[in-house]
Amino acid sequence: MAHVVITSGPTRQYLDPVRYITNASSGRMGAALADAALHFKHAVTIVTGPVSVSYPRRAHVISVQTTEEMFIEARKAFEQADGLIGAAAPCDYRPRRVATQKMAKTGQPLLLELVETEDIIASLAATKMPHQWVVGFALETEDRHFRAITKMQKKSCDLMVSNGPEAIDAEESQVEIYKRGGELVGQCTGTKKKIGRDIFTIIHKTFCS
Amino acid sequence: MAHVVITSGPTRQYLDPVRYITNASSGRMGAALADAALHFKHAVTIVTGPVSVSYPRRAHVISVQTTEEMFIEARKAFEQADGLIGAAAPCDYRPRRVATQKMAKTGQPLLLELVETEDIIASLAATKMPHQWVVGFALETEDRHFRAITKMQKKSCDLMVSNGPEAIDAEESQVEIYKRGGELVGQCTGTKKKIGRDIFTIIHKTFCS
Repeated sequence: MAHVVITSGPTRQYLDPVRYITNASSGRMGAALADAALHFKHAVTIVTGPVSVSYPRRAHVISVQTTEEMFIEARKAFEQADGLIGAAAPCDYRPRRVATQKMAKTGQPLLLELVETEDIIASLAATKMPHQWVVGFALETEDRHFRAITKMQKKSCDLMVSNGPEAIDAEESQVEIYKRGGELVGQCTGTKKKIGRDIFTIIHKTFCS
Repeated sequence: MAHVVITSGPTRQYLDPVRYITNASSGRMGAALADAALHFKHAVTIVTGPVSVSYPRRAHVISVQTTEEMFIEARKAFEQADGLIGAAAPCDYRPRRVATQKMAKTGQPLLLELVETEDIIASLAATKMPHQWVVGFALETEDRHFRAITKMQKKSCDLMVSNGPEAIDAEESQVEIYKRGGELVGQCTGTKKKIGRDIFTIIHKTFCS
């Protein structure tokens, strides 16, 4: 039995108390991976942004809003865990300044300075212990294969799951799974539930058996 | 019997195929107002952004993503209707440029130029016929009373409902309702369902009886 941490869903980066930047990640892939990991008798911690999906009851669920909060909670959970799966789509930009009151419209354009947030998977993979493993997800609109491989190297991941933007908030999806070195180890199509099971079966065989 | 158009939920303004600006509006207030209007035997059209709330089956529901789409659909529906209730929280800024591919991170800050979107309620109220009425919502974090009155004048609304940011995505809320001239005509506290009924009762008495 292993302890698996799964990040899931989107995060929000507020510009002011009302408006924020986010994406349509639903948490469905995270829920499917958690289901599959529990099926293999692993212990599961999910660190999730705001979603309306239901996670399995036997998973320990930690809810966060921002990428910073997701990073802090995922780091804490990963310290005690064997593996980390980065299925979340954390917001990777945040406004440099956050207004404390709702910004009133002025009739003029608004210049918003965005800075990159912490890369959760890269940061945690960089400090992982020899027994720990990290699986990343790469969502790309172009050059999917090349970018997934590059991201895997840059982020020190052990496996990389590549998908496209059509996967976001969709019931069905199509993914490829690559090993370090770029070798394709799996290709799955179907519902998120089926893909989650297929991906986790590869993870289980690679790291837990 | 009147025909009432209700805008509901948030809208999304995409920066690229993945990231967008939005807010946490749930559509609950729109659903509660629709329920109340149907209870008074009115015909209801809801123009809604992406929400997970369920609208009453007897309402005609039109789904949109962006503020521009909400404006177009609300304008079309309002042409045939007696009244318009602006319960939506449409995104009031959009990026001047939308990237066609997912923007890759560069390690550098990103300057985003935002421009104001069309003010749906102000635009439609400005062209309303003598028999038509428009009810606006003002969400403010400070100077609520003063700003609600100012918005009502500026947007040519017949009633203005004022609430605070704590109302967003909440089960319960507290609102004040003002008439042209600034007179307080109602104050409601409780669940969104109750508040929706209370607000619509005032709307019905003011415009439909």
